[in-house]
Amino acid sequence: MKRFVHLHELTRTEVLDLLALADRLEKTPEGERLKGKILALLFFNPSLRTLASFQAGMARLGGASFVISPGQGSWQLETRLGAVMDGAAAEHVREAIPVLAGYGDALGIRSFAGGTDLAADVADAAFEEMAAVCPVPVINLESAIDHPCQALADWRTIDEIGVPHGGKFVLSWAWHPKALPLAVPAAAVHMAALRGMEVVVHRPEGFGLPEAVMDRARLAATLSGGSVRETADRAEAMEGAHVLYAKSWTAPVAYGRPEKEAALRAGLRGWCVDESWFAPARPECRFMHCLPVRRNVVVRDEVLDGPRSVVVREAHNRMWTQMAVLHRLLGGAA
Amino acid sequence: MKRFVHLHELTRTEVLDLLALADRLEKTPEGERLKGKILALLFFNPSLRTLASFQAGMARLGGASFVISPGQGSWQLETRLGAVMDGAAAEHVREAIPVLAGYGDALGIRSFAGGTDLAADVADAAFEEMAAVCPVPVINLESAIDHPCQALADWRTIDEIGVPHGGKFVLSWAWHPKALPLAVPAAAVHMAALRGMEVVVHRPEGFGLPEAVMDRARLAATLSGGSVRETADRAEAMEGAHVLYAKSWTAPVAYGRPEKEAALRAGLRGWCVDESWFAPARPECRFMHCLPVRRNVVVRDEVLDGPRSVVVREAHNRMWTQMAVLHRLLGGAA
Amino acid sequence: MKRFVHLHELTRTEVLDLLALADRLEKTPEGERLKGKILALLFFNPSLRTLASFQAGMARLGGASFVISPGQGSWQLETRLGAVMDGAAAEHVREAIPVLAGYGDALGIRSFAGGTDLAADVADAAFEEMAAVCPVPVINLESAIDHPCQALADWRTIDEIGVPHGGKFVLSWAWHPKALPLAVPAAAVHMAALRGMEVVVHRPEGFGLPEAVMDRARLAATLSGGSVRETADRAEAMEGAHVLYAKSWTAPVAYGRPEKEAALRAGLRGWCVDESWFAPARPECRFMHCLPVRRNVVVRDEVLDGPRSVVVREAHNRMWTQMAVLHRLLGGAA
Repeated sequence: MKRFVHLHELTRTEVLDLLALADRLEKTPEGERLKGKILALLFFNPSLRTLASFQAGMARLGGASFVISPGQGSWQLETRLGAVMDGAAAEHVREAIPVLAGYGDALGIRSFAGGTDLAADVADAAFEEMAAVCPVPVINLESAIDHPCQALADWRTIDEIGVPHGGKFVLSWAWHPKALPLAVPAAAVHMAALRGMEVVVHRPEGFGLPEAVMDRARLAATLSGGSVRETADRAEAMEGAHVLYAKSWTAPVAYGRPEKEAALRAGLRGWCVDESWFAPARPECRFMHCLPVRRNVVVRDEVLDGPRSVVVREAHNRMWTQMAVLHRLLGGAA
Repeated sequence: MKRFVHLHELTRTEVLDLLALADRLEKTPEGERLKGKILALLFFNPSLRTLASFQAGMARLGGASFVISPGQGSWQLETRLGAVMDGAAAEHVREAIPVLAGYGDALGIRSFAGGTDLAADVADAAFEEMAAVCPVPVINLESAIDHPCQALADWRTIDEIGVPHGGKFVLSWAWHPKALPLAVPAAAVHMAALRGMEVVVHRPEGFGLPEAVMDRARLAATLSGGSVRETADRAEAMEGAHVLYAKSWTAPVAYGRPEKEAALRAGLRGWCVDESWFAPARPECRFMHCLPVRRNVVVRDEVLDGPRSVVVREAHNRMWTQMAVLHRLLGGAA
Repeated sequence: MKRFVHLHELTRTEVLDLLALADRLEKTPEGERLKGKILALLFFNPSLRTLASFQAGMARLGGASFVISPGQGSWQLETRLGAVMDGAAAEHVREAIPVLAGYGDALGIRSFAGGTDLAADVADAAFEEMAAVCPVPVINLESAIDHPCQALADWRTIDEIGVPHGGKFVLSWAWHPKALPLAVPAAAVHMAALRGMEVVVHRPEGFGLPEAVMDRARLAATLSGGSVRETADRAEAMEGAHVLYAKSWTAPVAYGRPEKEAALRAGLRGWCVDESWFAPARPECRFMHCLPVRRNVVVRDEVLDGPRSVVVREAHNRMWTQMAVLHRLLGGAA
């Protein structure tokens, strides 16, 4: 494995191999495996789980890490090619990326969507420009359109709760006071499709995921024996579901147009998951969310504090699955 | 030891055991003792000594640590139960605490007083709510009403400077431009009482520590052969003192009422420790402060730069005593 | 070596020894050399390379490090002697420095120029006051008038690109929207002089470096067989040059007078390095800069993205040369 940037760059077999390695590392510690190795972490955006789980994961494998956060103790970084840099940014990623990468053995980058140009964000253009000047393996800590570390942890969680190969996975939009990126829903739908599940995207009109994302997920589903469809009908979506994965995201049809987007969201406060959503589902249907989650906005306390919720387990699985990724990228032969 | 949250949860013997372990660790390094162990550190408030001494202490024991600071590169966290989270906070501590704890083997939390509800702060309600959802040992890095790490370091410092068991310990209020928390004075008075000292709290009218704090300290004093009393008379307080411990704190009688509190503090600028304070004390009387300290506001340069001051030694002892705590919580059998 | 604060505190032989050690450490890792050692890092100003390269370097030698950034999760620190601290700063460096130093085995400090008092900044008065209260070896991470870590990395880079002992080194002023410190140009001119090069400082009128800096560089040049001179004539400066080192700096004749300084800089936007600057130079003339660099302000993309640029290699050499410094300060006998 040369980099870990998109789940769709891996075969299903490679994903299963990473998950098996995560199991092995949890059961049989390899505290010296990455001794002398250093992970550089570059965060353009806030983080709790990602920063903590990567630092802890490197330490558990015997390696070390360092963190750079532009604008928070480090220079603001410019990403536009050809820019005349007489504004706030003191440094360009074309220098910063190879410099930071050179101090480490791999580089993790978190860089959220620009949020104005849907085509550029769906193509992960900014992330790929940074990856192109990075001389060491790159890890995607959440980019404009993907969050493969989250997807891997979610897959492991779904395995742990015993959802069958062809189980029903509902990704549902939820209300949120802000227009949020597409990265997690895009990653979740692809993960579930690649796992071979019956995937239903439940969302209001205007909130359908971009065609490129859906097409890629459908291809993955085809190869894995699953399916992907969309609906705005909650009862139909939840009928017989094994998993409800909630997440808010911006309306692709109003991408980069805040007023239109807000108008589309107005009136959708009712899209807050509560126990009643699960009535048509299987009794054992679980609730998933990538976190952070706004309580009583995206989902009610009764769900998060009840037995359906596996959100903490998902977060915990971030560490074990990322350790598998680090092991494959930096650990030499297994 | 299952957690290190309040000194009053430990017996005097357990405290003496920690101090003996700190001595041993300073003399005989155990650089592999916490190999493979990870300390998660969550700071809701600023830190210099606590962050540095815990990171250094873990490293000296062969372990690792990571730091999360909500609002500084990480999401702001909600602490209120039942909150509808449509404001600034993106995540609730009910998720964040178990998630961070799960990446580590112990979790340190710094969470200063809310400052509006005295009863809730004296009961450390917010801290205990977080501790209740933490699946690994919790360390109090300063809560609303306690700072046990500071207390342990101060005890060691008092031992080092040769103060006898029943020596006289004066905790004195000092002027400060802001209304400060009660955690350090509450911790100091309890520590000195549990050590069996003659404890005098020297403070202006209105600044008496909460009854629950004083009652607990008096109980500890009784069991250890010491005593605890209050006075506003400086000469009486300082008569024959072995130690003057200065600290500013808010007026409990005006808790959560900033205007009344400021009125009580107005006119107290003279409560700035200078050399003259020590005239009635023993010649060798030492000056202590937990740091950070505002020079020429809380205490004059002549004291801090003179031979009485042991403030740097107190800070240094943070590391050794905390290493003893980490050793007991994470190190297996000694 | 007791500290690493100024290159001019080292003999040429000691510098060559550090460079040889950097070579050895890059070729033959010593991953256990600083096991159990801790580097304290105190940043009053932003950093990318310095923070990352020191943390990575300590880890590559088996040691650990921690970072404190006043005002960013830590208290603001006061530096003025005798200050009545009733403002924003909660702690004085006279406490903070010995405290942090005591948790580590060496202390690195970054503290940029005050920018108002040229004599004080040229004497590095603020830095030396902090160094005076530090009980462990001090490393200068960039002070008011020096950046010896950068100088050492630059020397190594110049060796690597094969510039002869007496080669021509041009330090050129460049335009920048802000008045920048003198530390890097002062460090660069001294380094090049001590290496025995023909040093030309190319700058507009008013931007000549302080006499104390130039005198010290001239002395170093004399001892090493080199020379140091200044000019405002670009063609003369670049004639036969081996290296062009670009950097912006404030006008010493207008130090601490922002309006006069801005007036001097106005009209100098043309001092942006492009390929035409290299016409009179040797064909293989290289471009150097300490980074961060503002593209198309200080230097054009065509230079940074072309074969002349060695800026990333300079940054990379920070790690290896600093590892040599750490090794000498903390590593015992070689």
